[in-house]
Amino acid sequence: MQTDHGPVHTPIFMPVGTVGSVKGVHLRELQDDINADIILGNTYHLYLRPGTDILKQAGGLHKFNGWNRPILTDSGGYQVYSLAERRKITEEGVKFQSHIDGSYHHFTPESVMDIQRAIGADIIMAFDECPPYPSTYEYAKKSMHMTHRWLDRAIDYLGKTDGYYGYKQSLFPIVQGSTYKDLRRESAEYIASKGADGNAIGGLSVGEPAEAMYEMTALVCDILPEDKPRYLMGVGTPVNILENIALGVDMFDCVMPTRNGRNGMLFTADGHINIKNKKWANDFSPIDSAGNTFVDLQYSKAYLRHLFAANELLGKQIASIHNLGFYLWLVREARQHIIAGDFLPWKNQMVKQMDKRL
Amino acid sequence: MQTDHGPVHTPIFMPVGTVGSVKGVHLRELQDDINADIILGNTYHLYLRPGTDILKQAGGLHKFNGWNRPILTDSGGYQVYSLAERRKITEEGVKFQSHIDGSYHHFTPESVMDIQRAIGADIIMAFDECPPYPSTYEYAKKSMHMTHRWLDRAIDYLGKTDGYYGYKQSLFPIVQGSTYKDLRRESAEYIASKGADGNAIGGLSVGEPAEAMYEMTALVCDILPEDKPRYLMGVGTPVNILENIALGVDMFDCVMPTRNGRNGMLFTADGHINIKNKKWANDFSPIDSAGNTFVDLQYSKAYLRHLFAANELLGKQIASIHNLGFYLWLVREARQHIIAGDFLPWKNQMVKQMDKRL
Repeated sequence: MQTDHGPVHTPIFMPVGTVGSVKGVHLRELQDDINADIILGNTYHLYLRPGTDILKQAGGLHKFNGWNRPILTDSGGYQVYSLAERRKITEEGVKFQSHIDGSYHHFTPESVMDIQRAIGADIIMAFDECPPYPSTYEYAKKSMHMTHRWLDRAIDYLGKTDGYYGYKQSLFPIVQGSTYKDLRRESAEYIASKGADGNAIGGLSVGEPAEAMYEMTALVCDILPEDKPRYLMGVGTPVNILENIALGVDMFDCVMPTRNGRNGMLFTADGHINIKNKKWANDFSPIDSAGNTFVDLQYSKAYLRHLFAANELLGKQIASIHNLGFYLWLVREARQHIIAGDFLPWKNQMVKQMDKRL
Repeated sequence: MQTDHGPVHTPIFMPVGTVGSVKGVHLRELQDDINADIILGNTYHLYLRPGTDILKQAGGLHKFNGWNRPILTDSGGYQVYSLAERRKITEEGVKFQSHIDGSYHHFTPESVMDIQRAIGADIIMAFDECPPYPSTYEYAKKSMHMTHRWLDRAIDYLGKTDGYYGYKQSLFPIVQGSTYKDLRRESAEYIASKGADGNAIGGLSVGEPAEAMYEMTALVCDILPEDKPRYLMGVGTPVNILENIALGVDMFDCVMPTRNGRNGMLFTADGHINIKNKKWANDFSPIDSAGNTFVDLQYSKAYLRHLFAANELLGKQIASIHNLGFYLWLVREARQHIIAGDFLPWKNQMVKQMDKRL
């Protein structure tokens, strides 16, 4: 995929930079060590802090945080959905209260385009409703149709406005439909008909069993155009990622490598590690001898365990870099195996290995 | 100063790595960006976590945390003094309760040597009592004499034991005497008589006015040998450091650059900045255009302010690196000006500038 801030090699994992910073990770680490092609920002969070005013003055998020490669922003739909009691959804849009100070705000399909224009991401997402799991068929259907109408309003509004910074912003629409096959099929067909530069699958990884997720992904990927990137939002574990690549997904994002890393969980090609575990206290071997970031060989498991035991910032930093480095390595490897034509046997082997607890 | 882990160019500032990690700062940043000659570890903290058992298995702190340049460990005297209600001082040593789990421990001049042998620092400190400020003359005198007796016990004990790792560990004794000139003089003479590789001034920067600190430092530096490094423990602000260099001090350590950094305070050659201040919200200039670490030009003041407003880890990391980079720049500059013979006019100019609030 090409953007005005450079290429994205798919399949790709996008580190999450909620408020414009991937937590605990320096810019140069993200570029040179983790080597991420693209990062994600959250519209809801960036709208509240620093706000569109500051972002416009800065010349957009790229200028503000110094990241020169592509950025994707979500639409705020998922965050607003997470606010639960603090929001009210109508046909017009969503009224919600800030999680920071309780102040009232209103997101509409149009206002969310304005905000994402101000943020200036290369890929911007349509405003959607993310129904909870489980949802009744009736609710999921009604919600899906509203998401489709919101999409049309977004496309209409975007056509009438210009970006601020002179480069292209691609709108990705989002397939919804909960775990109902006919709804997912209908939604995927509707989304595909828009001819967007890329298409997203939303409303998964919200508590449904992995099998249900895979079933929906397979069904939707059969309908969404093959020559445009397919983005599965908010997914997931390394195993989830490989399984979904097998089903046709090209793009992923998830807080798991950073959030779980901050809690002491490390993902590796041989399984996952809870570094807080007593068993690592005198294991002076490198964090991950097969790892590909500077932290993997420079620090030992025993030292990292000590940093977590002492609640040192550096522990969270090391684990975040390791996990993101591993996720990016994993999708780059997947790409190599797809090109080489041996993706499936490799994937099956990796899934078995990575599921272990070390 | 030469150590078996390389040279230390004085005057020097030692970043504090309390539990073997300089908070929020990666090893390679400390080496290549901040370019610290030597770091400090805390005997009290390292004894509690990870403990001497793990450190011995690792082969010492250098192997444990990966830092290959010199390390100095304090004696635990100051930390034990900070425990206030949780410790009891006798001639034998100090009984105290861990701040982590309340467990009981006993430090003696001898046991503290054992612990520092296990940690394996290049420079180890004698166990001392740090009297509070203010102290009565009687208390300060009694305490100082006990510190001297403890020093003799430490020297005696060290002479009978070997290090674990085959390299040299230099014992630095500590001058005490509170803010009483005759006690400081007596203590400095006693300490100087031991012919140690370097000598420390303790019991300052504990609440006394800066003028009292300078008066004591001047007096003690006149007595301690000129050809051995003089280490002023726990000091201080950039202004304190330059003033004390002028009085003859060669080594410093302080948590200020990292701790204040984590709270949003930046030290620069032109004064200090509270980056949380609203006035920086749309200042898109670099953090410090005269700064010498990668963070100084890569991130803007507005972005750093935003990171603090959103309580992002990265904000604390950036401020810590900036401040340590500045402190190390400052002492390197001081060295250049001493060599060039124009230290005093430069120092006077810098003190004026750095005292400003930006």
